[in-house]
Amino acid sequence: MHPDVEAFHTYRQRMNELILSKQNKVINRLFNLDTNTYQDGALPAKVKEMLGLVASMVLRCDDCIKYHLGKCKELGVTTDEMYEIFAVANIVGGTIVIPHTRRAAEYWEALQQ
Amino acid sequence: MHPDVEAFHTYRQRMNELILSKQNKVINRLFNLDTNTYQDGALPAKVKEMLGLVASMVLRCDDCIKYHLGKCKELGVTTDEMYEIFAVANIVGGTIVIPHTRRAAEYWEALQQ
Amino acid sequence: MHPDVEAFHTYRQRMNELILSKQNKVINRLFNLDTNTYQDGALPAKVKEMLGLVASMVLRCDDCIKYHLGKCKELGVTTDEMYEIFAVANIVGGTIVIPHTRRAAEYWEALQQ
Amino acid sequence: MHPDVEAFHTYRQRMNELILSKQNKVINRLFNLDTNTYQDGALPAKVKEMLGLVASMVLRCDDCIKYHLGKCKELGVTTDEMYEIFAVANIVGGTIVIPHTRRAAEYWEALQQ
Amino acid sequence: MHPDVEAFHTYRQRMNELILSKQNKVINRLFNLDTNTYQDGALPAKVKEMLGLVASMVLRCDDCIKYHLGKCKELGVTTDEMYEIFAVANIVGGTIVIPHTRRAAEYWEALQQ
Amino acid sequence: MHPDVEAFHTYRQRMNELILSKQNKVINRLFNLDTNTYQDGALPAKVKEMLGLVASMVLRCDDCIKYHLGKCKELGVTTDEMYEIFAVANIVGGTIVIPHTRRAAEYWEALQQ
Repeated sequence: MHPDVEAFHTYRQRMNELILSKQNKVINRLFNLDTNTYQDGALPAKVKEMLGLVASMVLRCDDCIKYHLGKCKELGVTTDEMYEIFAVANIVGGTIVIPHTRRAAEYWEALQQ
Repeated sequence: MHPDVEAFHTYRQRMNELILSKQNKVINRLFNLDTNTYQDGALPAKVKEMLGLVASMVLRCDDCIKYHLGKCKELGVTTDEMYEIFAVANIVGGTIVIPHTRRAAEYWEALQQ
Repeated sequence: MHPDVEAFHTYRQRMNELILSKQNKVINRLFNLDTNTYQDGALPAKVKEMLGLVASMVLRCDDCIKYHLGKCKELGVTTDEMYEIFAVANIVGGTIVIPHTRRAAEYWEALQQ
Repeated sequence: MHPDVEAFHTYRQRMNELILSKQNKVINRLFNLDTNTYQDGALPAKVKEMLGLVASMVLRCDDCIKYHLGKCKELGVTTDEMYEIFAVANIVGGTIVIPHTRRAAEYWEALQQ
Repeated sequence: MHPDVEAFHTYRQRMNELILSKQNKVINRLFNLDTNTYQDGALPAKVKEMLGLVASMVLRCDDCIKYHLGKCKELGVTTDEMYEIFAVANIVGGTIVIPHTRRAAEYWEALQQ
Repeated sequence: MHPDVEAFHTYRQRMNELILSKQNKVINRLFNLDTNTYQDGALPAKVKEMLGLVASMVLRCDDCIKYHLGKCKELGVTTDEMYEIFAVANIVGGTIVIPHTRRAAEYWEALQQ
């Protein structure tokens, strides 16, 4: 695993454990609901992860982008498909999405290794 | 056609004509590029319209939502699929997306008629 | 009840019923979780509604603002307190919050009747 | 004056009076500071109003847009200049700015009468 | 003081001094007004800092979050109360607030030392 | 060239090359259109870069801010003018823009060297 991918997962997991340990019911249920959102249903998980990715891009959340990039990679999204998702995000969200697209493109390369 | 759908299209078309008539090159090329974004490619148009819809929902743009709802209807998105898109948008974007989901749900019903 | 307050509640309830009738599990659980968020806990419900209001104001969601204004009124927030919440929202969120503050001020008056 | 322009000013003034009458010091000073921001300085008022407009467009605040459109008209901004401002807003902010550009284009026409 | 807390304060103070030294009247008055916003009034300072925090969280401004976390700590907000504020922010703002909640949770621990 | 300025340009160029190499037509045309947006026209390039800067500030995109700060410096914007742009951004966008203004102020100093 590329060190950037590993660093992302390690920090994410450590902090999720900290947050969940406080046992705030609303937060813990939201984390649980978040996982359920991307399960196969009327739409396949792959499409849902693409939806989660484009939403994260237009809202410009780098960590959310990394998470969904990883899931998209696992579920077989190709580079051509990925850049079409990037295209929708940049057209809808405008050029302020470009710096996030740069970081997404870099992380996408890291995920190929 | 439901009167809400017709009113949306009439205003949209009238204003697009006004804007394009001013012949600002950047704007006119952006409008053109916008159309190209949602064509079949590595991803089918249907998936791209779903991506455009979820992006519009989390950015909370009612008119953009209506436009992509119309396109999704044309391309055969079912109500079960649509509510899974709504679910992603509401989970990623939070409860501030709910009022836009109400209006989206109302317009989706109008599109069925 | 002032007609603006009644119109808000009627539309909100009708659309919530439409959305919930579709039985999308994620959405229905999110609606449920949303209600739980504002219950008395370590912080009293009154403070939580004020938190929900200021969050809605800086995110500029008029319907969310109306909902929390109604709850704040029920829970005894005074007009002086309300304008201090408006002040925080306008300082943090900037002058783009002003038009939403105008509509909030108008609805707050309607709630007094 | 076009009825849309008049309606905008009447509501805005009536609500500003309501808000200012509550004598919240922070809000009243912010309103005052807002006015000072757009005075001639190192940059002329005309440029500052254009800056206020483009900021309002990418933040997608229709009432803020109307206000700055009115000021830009008073200060002699031409239609060609205005559409170049619209172009920057749409490129930076993306196609979600288009519906606001439609309403801005309509109001700009109303201001010419 | 934890090194993360110290680094935050040092950079913040150094840059505030740089900005204020330029003597732009609007900016300097806004900085002053910002301080006044969180003073005891109809609402106690503690509630206002909680309002500032939740607003910063849904707007996803990490530095603003750190500032208000520090103030909340000074004013006696407990960890249970803090996680209820986090819950409101995550419900209203959605899962895109989670990465900011991770960093907030980490900084909150640093503030306890 | 200050090392911060150089680091910004190096990363930006390397990632733009990666993105453009994928030959997604929509993205490549958007990058091209982005460049055209800031050319001299009815408004001079200098004003357009100021518009791009204020838009980037209220949308709180640090990399976009750095890019337009560099262009503004090249086109002769003075420090007094720059702080008036900062003032508009902070008034319109609120105090959540302050942390971005700190980083902008720091980068603006780096550009003077």
